[in-house]
Amino acid sequence: MESGTEIGDLIRVAKDRLTYEGILIPRSEYGDDKHIVIKIKSGYNIGIEITPTTRIERIGAKTKPAFVPPPSPSQKPGLPEVIIVSTGGTIASRVDYRTGAVRPAISASDLYSIVPELSDIALIDTVILFSLFSEDLTPRHWSELAGAIGRYVAGGAEGIVVTHGTDTMGYTAAALSFALQNLPIPVVFVGAQRSEDRPSSDAASNLVGAVKAAASAPFAEVVVAMHETISDEAIVLHKGTKVRKCHTSRRDAFKTVNASPVAKVLNGEVIMLASKFHPRDLRRKLVLKHDFEEKVALIKFYPGMSPEIIKSLVEAGYKGLILEGTGLGHVRRECLPAVKNAIDKGLIVAMTSQCIWGRVNMNVYANGRDLIAMGVVPLQDMLAETALVKLMWALGQTKDKDEAVSLLETNVAGEISPRTVEPVQTPETVATEGRGISVDESRL
Amino acid sequence: MESGTEIGDLIRVAKDRLTYEGILIPRSEYGDDKHIVIKIKSGYNIGIEITPTTRIERIGAKTKPAFVPPPSPSQKPGLPEVIIVSTGGTIASRVDYRTGAVRPAISASDLYSIVPELSDIALIDTVILFSLFSEDLTPRHWSELAGAIGRYVAGGAEGIVVTHGTDTMGYTAAALSFALQNLPIPVVFVGAQRSEDRPSSDAASNLVGAVKAAASAPFAEVVVAMHETISDEAIVLHKGTKVRKCHTSRRDAFKTVNASPVAKVLNGEVIMLASKFHPRDLRRKLVLKHDFEEKVALIKFYPGMSPEIIKSLVEAGYKGLILEGTGLGHVRRECLPAVKNAIDKGLIVAMTSQCIWGRVNMNVYANGRDLIAMGVVPLQDMLAETALVKLMWALGQTKDKDEAVSLLETNVAGEISPRTVEPVQTPETVATEGRGISVDESRL
Repeated sequence: MESGTEIGDLIRVAKDRLTYEGILIPRSEYGDDKHIVIKIKSGYNIGIEITPTTRIERIGAKTKPAFVPPPSPSQKPGLPEVIIVSTGGTIASRVDYRTGAVRPAISASDLYSIVPELSDIALIDTVILFSLFSEDLTPRHWSELAGAIGRYVAGGAEGIVVTHGTDTMGYTAAALSFALQNLPIPVVFVGAQRSEDRPSSDAASNLVGAVKAAASAPFAEVVVAMHETISDEAIVLHKGTKVRKCHTSRRDAFKTVNASPVAKVLNGEVIMLASKFHPRDLRRKLVLKHDFEEKVALIKFYPGMSPEIIKSLVEAGYKGLILEGTGLGHVRRECLPAVKNAIDKGLIVAMTSQCIWGRVNMNVYANGRDLIAMGVVPLQDMLAETALVKLMWALGQTKDKDEAVSLLETNVAGEISPRTVEPVQTPETVATEGRGISVDESRL
Repeated sequence: MESGTEIGDLIRVAKDRLTYEGILIPRSEYGDDKHIVIKIKSGYNIGIEITPTTRIERIGAKTKPAFVPPPSPSQKPGLPEVIIVSTGGTIASRVDYRTGAVRPAISASDLYSIVPELSDIALIDTVILFSLFSEDLTPRHWSELAGAIGRYVAGGAEGIVVTHGTDTMGYTAAALSFALQNLPIPVVFVGAQRSEDRPSSDAASNLVGAVKAAASAPFAEVVVAMHETISDEAIVLHKGTKVRKCHTSRRDAFKTVNASPVAKVLNGEVIMLASKFHPRDLRRKLVLKHDFEEKVALIKFYPGMSPEIIKSLVEAGYKGLILEGTGLGHVRRECLPAVKNAIDKGLIVAMTSQCIWGRVNMNVYANGRDLIAMGVVPLQDMLAETALVKLMWALGQTKDKDEAVSLLETNVAGEISPRTVEPVQTPETVATEGRGISVDESRL
C-alpha cells in the first residue's frame, strides 16, 4: 500500500484541511481502491476517499487486534460491574479474508480489547456462553442463558450485556423478558448488522451503547440495543417484547412495534423515552422462570391454506399454536373446524396479525367472532414472534390450560400495549377539514 | 333528533361561522351524542361536534342510500369506460345497526350511487363477482377473477377497478400481476379499512381515487389504491407485487416494500412516482396466464422449529415451499436435512426473509451457503407473500421443475427490485463525519 503503511498500523490521513487518525483496517470485500478504511478512536470505522491531495502518514506500528486481557477491576474501582455474555452472531464474528466467509471467531473479550473506551464506562467481565448463529438457538438455549444471567446477578453484576446474532435476537429478548422476573438490573441484548472488521460495522458503536445502558440506565428491563438510524449517533433501546428485526441488512433494522422505545443512548447519556419503566434496584430479588415448552408452533396463514396443516400439528402432539392471521385476526372459514378440533384436543390456540402493526379485533367480522366463540385467544397488539415465545413460556410454567391461557392474556413484560387511552370519539383532527371536524382513527 | 332531522336528510350545520352541508348518517357504534356525522358532497363523512351555538337545519328530504342505476353511457360519452368488479370486503359492507355486525351487503352499484361524483370521472359498469371476506378467497378465485377481467378487457373496458377485502388484497393483487400479462389498461384493486357508513370511512375516497386511476392513469399495471396517510388527501397506488398490509386498522395500512409506489391521486390528478412503468396501450393484447398450483406452502421459520414440519408437507404431496427465514435468509442447521430431502423429492424450495424489508443474501453465513448448495432458490427482495403466490403461479404454468425455477427467478411483474444501482462504495455520506467520510449502507 502507498506510503508504506500496513493493515493494523496507526495512520494519520490529511485531506481537505481535515486530519483523521486511526488504525488502518482491511477494505474487505469492497474491492475498491479509491477509499481507505480506518478505525478511529471512538471505535467507529470510517471510509475516506483518496484524492490526489490526500496525504497518508504512518504514525504507529502494527497493532493487530488480538486478545488483550481487560484491565483488572482494581484499576477503576468506582465503575459499575457489567458482564458481557457472548452467544455468537455477527457482533462476535470476523470475515476470513482468504475465503470471504464470516466466522464466529471473536469473543466478547476480543471485542473489549478492540473497543478500549468500554473501560471508561464499566468494569467488565466477559463470558463466552455459546458461539452460535442465532437461527440455531432454541428455547433450551434461552433457558440456559437465563440461568447464567441468574448466576451473574446473584454474583453482584450491576448490568448484563448479551451479544447475540441479530436474526433471532428479538425472539431471545422476548424469552428472557418472561424468564427473568423481578429483575434488579438491566439486561441489554446487542448485535451487529456488519461484522466488526468491515468499514460500515455497527459492532463497536452498538456495544458501547449497550454497555453504557447496562452500566447506568435507570431501568431494570430486558432491552435490545441497536442503531436508531443508519448513522452512528444514537443507540436506541427497544423493549424485549416489542422489538422486531425489520430489515435484512440496515443498521437501524430493529424497530419497536406498537409502542415507544424504552430509551436511547446519545452523547454518552441514557435518555429515557418511555414514561413508565421498572426501575433499577439492586435489593430486588430476581425470580427465574425459565422453562419453555417446545411443542408450540407458529402458523402464518395464507390464502387457500389447507386445514390439514393445523391437523398435522395436533396429531404431532403440539400443545399450542400461534396463528398469524390476516388483518384483525382472521383465517379462512375452511380452517375453522380444524381450529375447533385443536382446541377440543386440549391445545391452546391464540391469534396475532401478520400486519405486524396494530391490534387484533376479532369481534368485527363473522370469521373472527366464530374463532373467539371456539376459544381462540386474541392477543391484542402482541407481535406474533413474542406471542410464540410467550405461549412456549406459559406452557412451561403450568400444565393447567386455563392457567396458561390466563398467563397468556396477562401483560407480563410489556408485551401488550394498552389501547390508546382516549375517551370514545376523542377526535384526531383532520387538518384539511377545519375546526370541530374530526375523524376518529383510533377505532374501526 | 334535534331540529326534526332524520337519518338520510340533507342538512346544513352552522358552527363557528363555518357552514357544512351533507346527508345526515348514523353515528353508528360510537355511542356519542356530542357529534353528528354527515356525508358531504365530496363523499367524505365528517363528524361535527355539537356545541350550544351549533345550528342544524334540514334543507332536503330523506334520501336513504339505495340502488340508483348509473347514468347510461350516452349521457357522458366522452368519458373512459371503467368496470368496477366487486369481490366483497369492508368496502362492500355495512354495519347492521341492530346487531353491530358487519355484513357484506353493498354492491359496487350501491357504492356508485352513494359516490355520485364517480360519474364525472368515468362511464361505469358494475359487476358483482363474489361477496366474500378476503381471507376466504383462494387461488381458484384469483383464477376466476383473472378470467373475468380478461373478458372485460376484450369487451373494451378502459380501466378495471376490483373492490376487495383488505386482509388478502396484497396476495390477490400479486396473483393478478402474474396472471394478467401484457395488460393494455390499469387494473386497480381498492378496499376500505372502515365500512362506508362509518364516520371515518375511507371507502368513498379510496374508490374515487381507484376509479380515477383506472380511467386515466398512463400505466397499464395491477396496483392497489389506498390512503397514503390517515388523511383523505392522497390515494397512493402500490405495485401489486410489492404491496403489503402493514397495520390492522389504519387507513394508510398498505405500504410499498423495497420500492417506490407507482403513482398517487392528488386533487383529482394521477401523479406518477415510479420512473419506469408499463404504459397504457389499448392495442396491446392481454395474455391470460391464470393457472395456480395450490399445493404450495408458506413456512415462517422460528427458533427451535422442528424439521418435521417440512417433512410432513413433503409427505402430503406439496410441490413447493416458500421459507420465510430469518435475516438474510436462514433456517436452523437442524432443518437442513429436511430441506435437502424436500428438494431431492422434487419440490421447489425458495427463500424469503421475515424481516420484510431488505434482500436475502445467502452467501454470507454458513447455513445460507449450505441451503444454496442444496438448491434453495434465494428470492432477492421479494415479499414472502408475493413469493408464495408466484411459486403457485410458476407451478401452474409448467410441470418442468427447471422451467418453474427459472420463472421464479425472473422478474415477471416488478416483484424483484434491482439492487440499488450504485457503483461499489458510492457512499451514503454520514453528516456527522465531515467531508469525504462515508459509510456504505448499501452492502453488507
